Amino acid sequence: MAEVVSLNRGPMLSSLDHGVLRLTLANPPANALSIALMEALVAKLAKAEEDPDVRVVVLASAGKLFSAGHDLKEMTSHRGDPDRGRAFFEKTLRLCSHLMLQITRLSKPVIAEVDGLATAAGCQLVASCDLAICTDTSTFCTPGVNIGLFCSTPMVAVSRAAHRKQAMEMLLTGEVIDASTAKDFGLVNRIVPKQYLTQVVDKYASNIASKSPLTLKIGKEAFYRQVDMPLEEAYGYAARVMVENMLARDAAEGIGAFLEKRHPTWTGE
Amino acid sequence: MAEVVSLNRGPMLSSLDHGVLRLTLANPPANALSIALMEALVAKLAKAEEDPDVRVVVLASAGKLFSAGHDLKEMTSHRGDPDRGRAFFEKTLRLCSHLMLQITRLSKPVIAEVDGLATAAGCQLVASCDLAICTDTSTFCTPGVNIGLFCSTPMVAVSRAAHRKQAMEMLLTGEVIDASTAKDFGLVNRIVPKQYLTQVVDKYASNIASKSPLTLKIGKEAFYRQVDMPLEEAYGYAARVMVENMLARDAAEGIGAFLEKRHPTWTGE
Amino acid sequence: MAEVVSLNRGPMLSSLDHGVLRLTLANPPANALSIALMEALVAKLAKAEEDPDVRVVVLASAGKLFSAGHDLKEMTSHRGDPDRGRAFFEKTLRLCSHLMLQITRLSKPVIAEVDGLATAAGCQLVASCDLAICTDTSTFCTPGVNIGLFCSTPMVAVSRAAHRKQAMEMLLTGEVIDASTAKDFGLVNRIVPKQYLTQVVDKYASNIASKSPLTLKIGKEAFYRQVDMPLEEAYGYAARVMVENMLARDAAEGIGAFLEKRHPTWTGE
Repeated sequence: MAEVVSLNRGPMLSSLDHGVLRLTLANPPANALSIALMEALVAKLAKAEEDPDVRVVVLASAGKLFSAGHDLKEMTSHRGDPDRGRAFFEKTLRLCSHLMLQITRLSKPVIAEVDGLATAAGCQLVASCDLAICTDTSTFCTPGVNIGLFCSTPMVAVSRAAHRKQAMEMLLTGEVIDASTAKDFGLVNRIVPKQYLTQVVDKYASNIASKSPLTLKIGKEAFYRQVDMPLEEAYGYAARVMVENMLARDAAEGIGAFLEKRHPTWTGE
Repeated sequence: MAEVVSLNRGPMLSSLDHGVLRLTLANPPANALSIALMEALVAKLAKAEEDPDVRVVVLASAGKLFSAGHDLKEMTSHRGDPDRGRAFFEKTLRLCSHLMLQITRLSKPVIAEVDGLATAAGCQLVASCDLAICTDTSTFCTPGVNIGLFCSTPMVAVSRAAHRKQAMEMLLTGEVIDASTAKDFGLVNRIVPKQYLTQVVDKYASNIASKSPLTLKIGKEAFYRQVDMPLEEAYGYAARVMVENMLARDAAEGIGAFLEKRHPTWTGE
Repeated sequence: MAEVVSLNRGPMLSSLDHGVLRLTLANPPANALSIALMEALVAKLAKAEEDPDVRVVVLASAGKLFSAGHDLKEMTSHRGDPDRGRAFFEKTLRLCSHLMLQITRLSKPVIAEVDGLATAAGCQLVASCDLAICTDTSTFCTPGVNIGLFCSTPMVAVSRAAHRKQAMEMLLTGEVIDASTAKDFGLVNRIVPKQYLTQVVDKYASNIASKSPLTLKIGKEAFYRQVDMPLEEAYGYAARVMVENMLARDAAEGIGAFLEKRHPTWTGE
């Protein structure tokens, strides 16, 4: 039986089921990434990092939109500040960048479960997750250019997920792309009909949650570190990582189980 | 009504219409990137950078080929120079690289409008533009390997637009790929029937020309700078860019117009 | 007539035919990359680098699998060593990384001819080749995560061939992808029916073998060097490479032959 623990109400719902932490954006009407929502996500991810019961994180959303990005009303309300909002904008973008980097650096895989429109920082959130699975009616855009505010931080994630010309098309035109185009671009891994979305995401999540948490931690960290290195440096680094991995108990157990055709038992060591 | 100003004749035609500067390679029979044509492009782009009436640049071509790349006859004619042509080859490749970097650094988006074969430095020109739209009969290749002169400068642009193995296939085989393959590879954004090419490009161009020029400038510059940075540095940089963008008048106007459901009026400040 | 020289038996077969060196993994049952096989490959590639009769290398395999990656039994047998295997694991991964870098740095193009499953370091081998052609029944995976040993060195090659999310899907799930998905991801260049595999690979190989070896050497080296550089540095470097290439005898011959509509004769100078 699933042990579902619903931990809070507010801009985000949270539940833990068999190692899968599901964080659901619940900030109607557009799941805007307000300061409150981003702080809630940052706090929850920080706890997830420390919690051995969390093996995989799913980022989902309630409502018709996945997320419309930053809260423009909240930001605009600070234009009357003595500094014309500079301190608040800096806080917002620092927090947002921190959140996105935190997803990348979390030792546990993060899967975006997308249904509906993901726009601006909402699109960035999808691009920042390790994997993304969406419904066939989901759509994506980086429309800041339409309102005079180029999607410069979203572009960091989008331009690392997709080819340059395709990222540029999204950024310069601000137009919405459909799920199939997003998959072609590299922004999502898989498209499923709406009625199967959670089921398919759960299958991915529980599959990954069944792996050694130590191995996932080693591999995810190494992925994002080596990808920014020149080739020879990347190999030197990855070879060292793999030797340490090989000497860990879970690798001995996993390889032993494989050779003996039995199921492994992970201890995370 | 369109105010079309035809500014010159020669290896290149130029016209400005509602913020869209259309530069048309007109160097028959193959639109070779001769010194004269490259110098004309460099001069025109330098003026476009300074001209507030230019919002977007379209690079098109007259004739059956988009561009066959460098002028091999011109280059060969310098083999009899006392230095066997070294100074001329250096001048050619420095000028060519300058042109390609200039397109990337231009604060205004550049769209390639491709009809016909784009080969070697002609293919590089397409790859260097921010966006590329081509007819369904357009073709692309980097065939230098066939004539003993590897397409080493074109590869800089092609390998940043496409995946490595696909770029390598073009470079090592020198074979021609069709429009559909070029789109799969990431070299072009969209394929249209010939009779609609200019119409579709104009739609993209006028759409982009309707955005805040300041926002486009901020965004395009940030795109190419952050894409070469490691992730954390990219976020630090992009967040600073976005705060400055947020404090600009056009962002206040654009976000205000969005919240008030009216059309924004850009001042470029 | 083909002059086929079969040079050895053992974990690898080797034959040279009209400039195409074909190295065939023959280490049944799974073509595991044992120390012996990797050392044989390294030695053969080192000789190929020096041998002017070798123009192109094809990496193929005998048997039902392309390669299952490292020899887990061999590695496990060293767990009883006084250092728990550390020295042996370091040797294995250093040798493997050396082999993969050697393929990238070889001045002659390397084509993977894949039929069957390519897994872990076997998948890395495919990703490390300049080009890859596979049968429609070939499959690919990086399943280390299933046995507690993340595919950290394979990820270096896979994450440079494919988009990040697609590489991550292979690495985090460990699941097998089919040939069509591998082509979408950028891991392979072309899919052919099994009965045509060798024929198609030979066509690619003999086409490339007909080019100037000097030009191939210049171009391949420049490709992997420039791809790790920021844009402006890449252009400065590539322009210098191309000037030297232009001054080489084979470029004069190739361009001359092209302008005179005759076949070039390469001297490799």
